[in-house]
Amino acid sequence: MKSPIRNPQFEIPNSNLPIGIFDSGVGGLTVYRALHERFPNERFVYLGDTARVPYGTKSLTTVERYAIENARFLEAHGIKLLVVACNTASALALPAIRRSLKVEVVGVIGPGARAAVQQAEGSSIAVIATEATVQSGAYANAIARIDATIKVIERACPLFVPLAEEGWAESDVAQAVAARYLGDLASKIGVLVMGCTHYPILREVISGVVGNNVHLIDSGEATAREVEALLKAKGLSRQPTENLARPRKLCDDLDHFYVTDAAERFAKVAERFLGSAPSVIEAVEVWGHDELRTN
Amino acid sequence: MKSPIRNPQFEIPNSNLPIGIFDSGVGGLTVYRALHERFPNERFVYLGDTARVPYGTKSLTTVERYAIENARFLEAHGIKLLVVACNTASALALPAIRRSLKVEVVGVIGPGARAAVQQAEGSSIAVIATEATVQSGAYANAIARIDATIKVIERACPLFVPLAEEGWAESDVAQAVAARYLGDLASKIGVLVMGCTHYPILREVISGVVGNNVHLIDSGEATAREVEALLKAKGLSRQPTENLARPRKLCDDLDHFYVTDAAERFAKVAERFLGSAPSVIEAVEVWGHDELRTN
Repeated sequence: MKSPIRNPQFEIPNSNLPIGIFDSGVGGLTVYRALHERFPNERFVYLGDTARVPYGTKSLTTVERYAIENARFLEAHGIKLLVVACNTASALALPAIRRSLKVEVVGVIGPGARAAVQQAEGSSIAVIATEATVQSGAYANAIARIDATIKVIERACPLFVPLAEEGWAESDVAQAVAARYLGDLASKIGVLVMGCTHYPILREVISGVVGNNVHLIDSGEATAREVEALLKAKGLSRQPTENLARPRKLCDDLDHFYVTDAAERFAKVAERFLGSAPSVIEAVEVWGHDELRTN
Repeated sequence: MKSPIRNPQFEIPNSNLPIGIFDSGVGGLTVYRALHERFPNERFVYLGDTARVPYGTKSLTTVERYAIENARFLEAHGIKLLVVACNTASALALPAIRRSLKVEVVGVIGPGARAAVQQAEGSSIAVIATEATVQSGAYANAIARIDATIKVIERACPLFVPLAEEGWAESDVAQAVAARYLGDLASKIGVLVMGCTHYPILREVISGVVGNNVHLIDSGEATAREVEALLKAKGLSRQPTENLARPRKLCDDLDHFYVTDAAERFAKVAERFLGSAPSVIEAVEVWGHDELRTN
């Protein structure tokens, strides 16, 4: 007899449950978009840790603590699978998250690295990301595990985040910033991994600077492809029902959005990133959920 | 009989105690620098809440909670006076901080507003700050309380923060960003308040865009002047002693630096902002100090 999940550690995930997504803030909406496009039958529950964003300048210990709190909050909500949309959290905290959760956990680093190697055909790969992701060397290590002969150039591009959030993606400023960060890469690389959820918003300007010959990898899109394989392998795909409205729209009422702070600002930037904002964004506290595990 | 302060609520501040300064992160070092220059006899204890930076995109409730935790941590450390260097925390949380502390608390909004009105001589005043400070209307309200006839233009300039932290203050990018944010102001204002601790790092480029005729107010410097008056009025100025090295240097061992995360990054940006970094930066947790008040 199936019943709604209350205490996930004693339950097998139900394919009707939503897919959980967490990010340090609003950037993970690009991953939500990629998943949403690929899975019209799935529902999603998104958590943006806007009270503690950004993670990219923080330490391993702190990012681990925040990531586990977010992950446990979503697991307690009832999810069948967790996507860690935040590159920094994926780079620093994936093992710790997996140890803390019963459900399957998918990060964005592995899928991004695998997609990059596939496209590289031996050419060098650039990875642009937050300071913390670059310092972790997570992408370089993941690429080296697949093909240790590929040269990897990692670079932090912190200004890309506020540029995307300001809605300046197509401005002269974005052009000048991209030229400064990436201008020297054009002739050196075959693939560039956008290793921060905000960066796909600047795809055009990044591509303009490194050149059309450089293949851009959106780790969110790469992750969506791997999630598809995982859902099939585990029998977790949600079957279409009459209850699910057609066509699905981004941010429609079938998806649920939580933030840890400043819901209004989240809605404003969501509108900028997706062209639409969730009608309801619930503000929650995710800290102090440790006791959920020990009940 | 005087003894080192342990439980501040039962003690009268001792003039030998340091001045406490807190900021959401590294930006408050510009306020530390202004205070340090003005008070060669004083010692300082600085707390940068780098685990939860930035405050400028967060809500009133969250900023209040963080600010009170920081303030109580410093009070428990033993300080004679607290300077809230962070404009966002000053704008949103000053009354809450004052209610929570026994020592005198000085924010940067009032001093900045008073200095601006003094210089304005009836001309319009622009205030550039974080989103949260602008939304609070704190500077506009403070200016209106002194002279309600002065026109105030408030504007959020979020990209200035990462520009300063990247060390790009004198770049073409900084120029393009400043032109985009402030290009229209030149003919409209007589005074511009740099209402975020990071912005004085960009003073040259800001001045270049709005023109040399516009008087720039550094709220940190304005605050240092008011702290001087307060120390004198309360008899809290520290008397020179032979123990205090001459000449004082920024970040020397007489001052103490705490961060809530990522000490290494703090040191790197401090070096960029001040030309020198503290030799010791202690990582601490400031949350959960509420019980200190009820002992």
